[in-house]
Amino acid sequence: MTIRFYDLVGSDPARPFSPHCWKVHMALTHKALDFERIPVCFTQIPALEGGVFKTLPAITNCKETVSDSMAIAVYLKDKFSDRGSHLFHGEGGVALSRFVEAWTNTQLHMWIRNWALLDILEMLSQKDQAYFRISRETRYGKPLEEIVAGRETTVPELLAKLEPFRAMLASQPFLGGKEPAFADYIVFGAFQWLRVCSGLHMIPASEPVLDWVNRMLDLHDGLARSVSEASA
Amino acid sequence: MTIRFYDLVGSDPARPFSPHCWKVHMALTHKALDFERIPVCFTQIPALEGGVFKTLPAITNCKETVSDSMAIAVYLKDKFSDRGSHLFHGEGGVALSRFVEAWTNTQLHMWIRNWALLDILEMLSQKDQAYFRISRETRYGKPLEEIVAGRETTVPELLAKLEPFRAMLASQPFLGGKEPAFADYIVFGAFQWLRVCSGLHMIPASEPVLDWVNRMLDLHDGLARSVSEASA
Repeated sequence: MTIRFYDLVGSDPARPFSPHCWKVHMALTHKALDFERIPVCFTQIPALEGGVFKTLPAITNCKETVSDSMAIAVYLKDKFSDRGSHLFHGEGGVALSRFVEAWTNTQLHMWIRNWALLDILEMLSQKDQAYFRISRETRYGKPLEEIVAGRETTVPELLAKLEPFRAMLASQPFLGGKEPAFADYIVFGAFQWLRVCSGLHMIPASEPVLDWVNRMLDLHDGLARSVSEASA
Repeated sequence: MTIRFYDLVGSDPARPFSPHCWKVHMALTHKALDFERIPVCFTQIPALEGGVFKTLPAITNCKETVSDSMAIAVYLKDKFSDRGSHLFHGEGGVALSRFVEAWTNTQLHMWIRNWALLDILEMLSQKDQAYFRISRETRYGKPLEEIVAGRETTVPELLAKLEPFRAMLASQPFLGGKEPAFADYIVFGAFQWLRVCSGLHMIPASEPVLDWVNRMLDLHDGLARSVSEASA
């Protein structure tokens, strides 16, 4: 039985954008696993698999269901230890990936959210748009337009946030060392989210982190590059 | 033959303060290795082992010499794979420790340096004080007093920088997972540097990262706690 991978999409099922889903998409491919990708809109999530999932990504494998990108990656490591390339290269890699996840969530996702909220909204189906606006405006306590206003002035903040990642890239080409690991997919998910929803045009072409983004886009026969960058 | 560990000190050889030396001190103990700790002042470094070291920490083991804290940790992992506890738990742990190092250097060390420069100066021998002031003022392009001025206003910046670490601690007690690993010593080196030179009084007692600092101070029979905190 093939793994089912539930992937969040907007009105175009061929433009998945969720950072957490991209981590899993890359990880399944990294492990050379057969899987069926099932595009799902926000408002369709409660109907999946009898309503067990609150968020995506989620996978099913035989009778098992797993959600949360990190939990899925650990599941794939344990279940398919003999398949494809390693995602973590040891338990030290699992533990430190949780720090990479915390760094990505607190430093990059917050910034990207504030940049991309309206761009994400535009990508959604009409029914999802209503859900998205209400849920996000309730969560953040203000209109989406107000969160995004003046976003161009915040680019130096993003570049400052990238400082530790840039410093790490001076000593090795990937977080995983010579080869990418799940930690690279964690950070890449954020960049792919921004790239697919808003584009990467706000990042100066001289930014060394973009070289790493390009290496990530090249992986697995250009899997992530196959979804085109949003135009400015 | 016992390992020789060259540890940077000021006028009191019993108050080592270097963040990079503390990483190695903790790592040698973590690996249950016999070592002789040799306290060294800044201006004594060029005379060590025929002048091979530019900075500390450094170790000698039989005829081998290694400097740089990360290189020493990797050397200990390779050379003493059967001794004590693991420092990295796999190659994934080594690669991701380089990101933890980059994060610590760019986020914590810069802040601590700006806070503690004059406190460090006071700890040094007279000869080292002259070297330290000239070398640092040349590097930073201004008097130490000017760098440190107004440091109390920068505490919120430090607390903001701790955000990803705080978020990681919500899912596990150490960077290494259930047990400390070299990555914990990398971050702890920064806190111990601040603690020994200036104290930790500027960090609110409610800060969750302090719980982790206390766990680190408890390790190895209170090794790091045996050097008392600087008073405010």
